[in-house]
Amino acid sequence: MPEPVRRAAVITHGKRETIGPALDRLEAAARASNVELLLPQDEAAKHDLEQDGGDPSQADLVAALGGDGTMLSALRRFLGTATPAVGVNFGSVGFLTSIPEDELEDGLNRIFAGEYELVELPTLDAHAVDDRRDAVNDVVATSSTLGRMIELAWSVGGESLGSLRCDGLISATPSGSTAYNLSNGGPVLVWGLDAMAVTFVAPHSLRARPLVIPRGRDLVVTNETPDVWVTALADGHVFSEIPPGGTMTVRLGPQRTLLATLPESTFFSRYRQTFAG
Amino acid sequence: MPEPVRRAAVITHGKRETIGPALDRLEAAARASNVELLLPQDEAAKHDLEQDGGDPSQADLVAALGGDGTMLSALRRFLGTATPAVGVNFGSVGFLTSIPEDELEDGLNRIFAGEYELVELPTLDAHAVDDRRDAVNDVVATSSTLGRMIELAWSVGGESLGSLRCDGLISATPSGSTAYNLSNGGPVLVWGLDAMAVTFVAPHSLRARPLVIPRGRDLVVTNETPDVWVTALADGHVFSEIPPGGTMTVRLGPQRTLLATLPESTFFSRYRQTFAG
Amino acid sequence: MPEPVRRAAVITHGKRETIGPALDRLEAAARASNVELLLPQDEAAKHDLEQDGGDPSQADLVAALGGDGTMLSALRRFLGTATPAVGVNFGSVGFLTSIPEDELEDGLNRIFAGEYELVELPTLDAHAVDDRRDAVNDVVATSSTLGRMIELAWSVGGESLGSLRCDGLISATPSGSTAYNLSNGGPVLVWGLDAMAVTFVAPHSLRARPLVIPRGRDLVVTNETPDVWVTALADGHVFSEIPPGGTMTVRLGPQRTLLATLPESTFFSRYRQTFAG
Amino acid sequence: MPEPVRRAAVITHGKRETIGPALDRLEAAARASNVELLLPQDEAAKHDLEQDGGDPSQADLVAALGGDGTMLSALRRFLGTATPAVGVNFGSVGFLTSIPEDELEDGLNRIFAGEYELVELPTLDAHAVDDRRDAVNDVVATSSTLGRMIELAWSVGGESLGSLRCDGLISATPSGSTAYNLSNGGPVLVWGLDAMAVTFVAPHSLRARPLVIPRGRDLVVTNETPDVWVTALADGHVFSEIPPGGTMTVRLGPQRTLLATLPESTFFSRYRQTFAG
Repeated sequence: MPEPVRRAAVITHGKRETIGPALDRLEAAARASNVELLLPQDEAAKHDLEQDGGDPSQADLVAALGGDGTMLSALRRFLGTATPAVGVNFGSVGFLTSIPEDELEDGLNRIFAGEYELVELPTLDAHAVDDRRDAVNDVVATSSTLGRMIELAWSVGGESLGSLRCDGLISATPSGSTAYNLSNGGPVLVWGLDAMAVTFVAPHSLRARPLVIPRGRDLVVTNETPDVWVTALADGHVFSEIPPGGTMTVRLGPQRTLLATLPESTFFSRYRQTFAG
Repeated sequence: MPEPVRRAAVITHGKRETIGPALDRLEAAARASNVELLLPQDEAAKHDLEQDGGDPSQADLVAALGGDGTMLSALRRFLGTATPAVGVNFGSVGFLTSIPEDELEDGLNRIFAGEYELVELPTLDAHAVDDRRDAVNDVVATSSTLGRMIELAWSVGGESLGSLRCDGLISATPSGSTAYNLSNGGPVLVWGLDAMAVTFVAPHSLRARPLVIPRGRDLVVTNETPDVWVTALADGHVFSEIPPGGTMTVRLGPQRTLLATLPESTFFSRYRQTFAG
Repeated sequence: MPEPVRRAAVITHGKRETIGPALDRLEAAARASNVELLLPQDEAAKHDLEQDGGDPSQADLVAALGGDGTMLSALRRFLGTATPAVGVNFGSVGFLTSIPEDELEDGLNRIFAGEYELVELPTLDAHAVDDRRDAVNDVVATSSTLGRMIELAWSVGGESLGSLRCDGLISATPSGSTAYNLSNGGPVLVWGLDAMAVTFVAPHSLRARPLVIPRGRDLVVTNETPDVWVTALADGHVFSEIPPGGTMTVRLGPQRTLLATLPESTFFSRYRQTFAG
Repeated sequence: MPEPVRRAAVITHGKRETIGPALDRLEAAARASNVELLLPQDEAAKHDLEQDGGDPSQADLVAALGGDGTMLSALRRFLGTATPAVGVNFGSVGFLTSIPEDELEDGLNRIFAGEYELVELPTLDAHAVDDRRDAVNDVVATSSTLGRMIELAWSVGGESLGSLRCDGLISATPSGSTAYNLSNGGPVLVWGLDAMAVTFVAPHSLRARPLVIPRGRDLVVTNETPDVWVTALADGHVFSEIPPGGTMTVRLGPQRTLLATLPESTFFSRYRQTFAG
C-alpha cells in the first residue's frame, strides 16, 4: 500500500459551477485527513481564492473534481512526474474517475490514507507538421471542413496500408479505447495492454477494420486530400492543422500516466458501470 | 422503351476542369443523334459559352457529366418535373451514374435513342428550424463544433426513442444508403424499397443500431446539447443550424427522382463495381 | 376497436412447467370475461385435460402462454386464417408478446373486451430442395457440420451477388429483424415495412454488408461447398438439408400473420424493453 | 540470417490430391539445395512412400504444403521445439503461408539457403472439463446443438463480466485474429502483440464488444445453458464437450510457435493479399 498523502494538488472542471460546493467538501476532507491542498495559480484564480495555493509540484497526489475531461487535464499536467491522479466524478462520463460524487468524503479519506492502487497507463506521442503533443486517451485526425470527406494514406512500422476516404482516423490507448474509439467500432483494450488501437471514422470502404498495434511500430498518416486540410486533436484538443500532403506520426510514448484508484474500482467495474445505461 | 430524346439539358461538375473535353464530346454525340442541347445559364457561363443555352425546362432528359455529386445536383434541380437524369461518371464515386467516362459516346447514343430504363427513387423532406430542403441521398445532423460531441433525442412516428451522445445522425434513402450511411455501419437498402435508414455517427452508446423506417413515419431529432449547435445537411450541403433545444423533422417526401439508366447498369452491378476496389 | 372475444384458442410453451399455474389463471380470466376456451388436442393432452377442448378453428383469438417461441408456434399454426394471436410472456424473450406475466389477468381482460390493435406482419416463403416452409421471423441457412465453414452463392431478383465463405445466411422479416438478424449485425426493420433483411453469419469476407430487399425480389442461395451440407431452418426449426450444389429460395410470402397487441405495447416500447437489459 | 537448412520435415494437406505433384517439386528443390527430407510416418504412408522417412525431430525446418489448416497442423506438431515451419500455399486461405504455389522452387530455395525471418507467435492454452489443448489460432466455445443458442458467463482475470446468450465465443491469438475472429467483428491484432482477442459469435445483446486482453489474465467461460452442451474447439478441431455448469479456461500459453517467412512476406503484405479479393 502506498504512503499516506500529505500534500494534494487540486484540478477542477473547466466550468466552476459544474462541481458546485465540491471544493468546500474537498477542503473539509483534506482537513480531516491532515492533508495540505496545493492549488495551481489558474485554479486559485478560477475559484477566487486569494491565498497562495502552494507549489503543486510538491504534491503526493492530484485530486481531480470533474469528469473524464478533467482527469485527462490532470493526467497530462502531471505527465512525467511521479504524482498519481485520483478523480471524483462530477461529469457524465467517468471512466477514469474512481470515486462517485456522493462518496467524495469517504473515497478521498481512504485515498488520503494510502488505500489505493496505482495503475500505469501508456500514452501516445504525436507529431503533426511542426507540432508535438502527448495524449492520454487518443489522437484523432479529422476533416477540417464540415461535411467534406478526407483521403488518408496510412502506414504502420514503415509498411504502407494503402489509402482510404473517410471522416477521420483514431489512434487510442487502452484508456482511450472505451471513448471515441469504441463509438466508431474499435475494440476495448483491457488496461495493462501496451498497445494502441487504430480505427477509422466513417470509412468509405468495405475493407477497413480496427487494428491493434504493439509498442514499437509507428503509425504514419498522410493527408492525401487535394483540397481539404486535416485537423489533429490530442484528447479532444486541436493541436495541429495538416495541409494536403502533410503527415502525422503517432506512437506509444515513453511517458506513462499514473492513476490512483480505489481497489474495488477496477477496469471491469468501470466498464460495466459506464456502459450499463 | 421510352421515346427517343430530342432535347437534353446539361449539368456539369462544379469544377470545369474535372470533365475536360467532355462537353465537346457530348456536343458531338448530341449532333450525331440529332439532339438539341439546352444549357442552364450558370452552365453556359461556367463554360464561357456565349450562345443562348435554350430553356432547360423543355428538356426530355438531363445529361450530367461528373460524379455522384453532379448527379445529385441534376436530380435535385429537376425534382418535381418528369425529366429523368442520366450520368456519365467523371468522379471517384459513381453510384448514381450509368455510363463510364470512356463509354460516353456509345452510352449517350443508346440513351438518346430511348434505350434506357427509368428508376424512380424516393426523396427526403427535411425541416429544421425555419428551413426546408429536399434531399435525394441523405439528411445529416452533425455537431457544428469540430471535436465536440452532441446529444440528440429522437422519436419515430411520435414515439420517443430516447437520447444519445454522438457525432451525428444520418437519415438515408435507398440511393443514399450506399453513401455516408454505409460508412457508418448502416444497411444497404435495395432500390425499389420505399423506406429510409436511420444510422448514428459515432454513437457513444453500446445500444444504437441502424433502423429502417417505412414511409409514413416521421423522424424527429432534437438537439439536447446545452451549448453546441447542430448543423443540418441535405446531400452534403448545409441548409440549417439547429440551436440547443431546436428540432429537425425528416420524412420520406412526396417527390420522387427519375433516374435514366442503361438496362445493364442495375443496382447490383453498380454495387459490385463501386465496392470491388 | 375489434369485437369482444367470445372464443379463444390456447397455445402454451412446449414445457408445461414453464408456465406454472398460468393455465388456471387464464381459465379464471376467461370465465370472468365470459370467453370460451378452445384447446387443440395436443394442448389438452399436454395438460392432462380430459374434456373435449372444442374446435380451435372456431376461435376469435389465440392466447399464447410462453415466450417468443410459443408465439411463433401460434402465429404459424393460424397462418392463413383471420385469427389474431396475443401473447403473455413467460419466456426470456418477449418481443412478440404483449402482456407481461404478472399482468395476465388485467391484460387478457382488456384483450377479451376488444381493447387491442391488430398488427399485420409479413412472412417468408422458403423453398429448399423439395421442402417448403412459411416463416414468421426468419429463414436461416447454416453449415450442417459443426466447425465447418460453408460457401454460399447468392442472387437477388435474378442478379448474382457472388459467393462468400461463411457460417450461414439469415433472411429476416421485420419481426425477425430483432432476433438472430440483430445478433449478426443486421438492421432493425420497423414493423410496417414490407421487406426482408439478408445478413450473413460470420462472413469470411470484408465486403459483406446487410441488405434490405423489397417485396417482389427473390433471394436464391446455392450451396457451393464441395463437401458440406447446408441445413435450412425456418423460425429455428430444421426443415431441409441442402446438398452441395443445391439451392434455397426465400421470398416475402403471400400470407401475413395477425398480432393482437395492447395499444401501449408498440414496436418501440418492446424494443426499448427487450434491449434495455 | 539463420543457418542454411540441412534437414527439413514435410507436412502435407490432409487430402493428398490437393497438393498434386507438389511433393515431387519439393523433392527436386530439396535435392538442388542439398537438403535431406524427413517424412513423419503418417505422411510417408499417405503418399505411399516405402522408404524410411527419417526422424522428423532432427529437422532444422518444417515445410508445409497446403493452406492455413496444414500450417496449423505443422505448427502444433512442432510446438515446444526450436523447429520453425514455412508454408507453401495450396489452399484458399494462406495467411500463415509465405510462398505462393507457383513460386515453390524459388521460395524454398531461398528458405533452404537461410534467407528467412523468424516470427514468434503466442499460443493459447485451453482447459475444458478434463481436456487440455494448445491452440495456434483460436479456441472457440460453440453450441453443441445446431440452431440452439447457448448462455455463457465469462470472467477475465477473476472478475465477472456477466453472461450473454449467443452462438459462441472466440478467443484468438494475433495469428488467429484474421480468421474466425475477424468474421465475427473482432479486431486485427498485429503480429508482435502478446495478447488475445475475445469476441462473441452472434451475441443476443446490444452490449457485447470485442475485448483485447494482455498476457497474464485468464478467460473463464461457464456454460450456463440449462439443457444444451457446449463444444470446445482448438484451431477448428473439437477437443471437449462442456456440460451445463461446466467451464473452460483460456490463457496465453507458455509456448510460442516459430514461423519462417520470406523477408518480403510481412504481416501487412499477407493482410493486403488475403483481403484484397
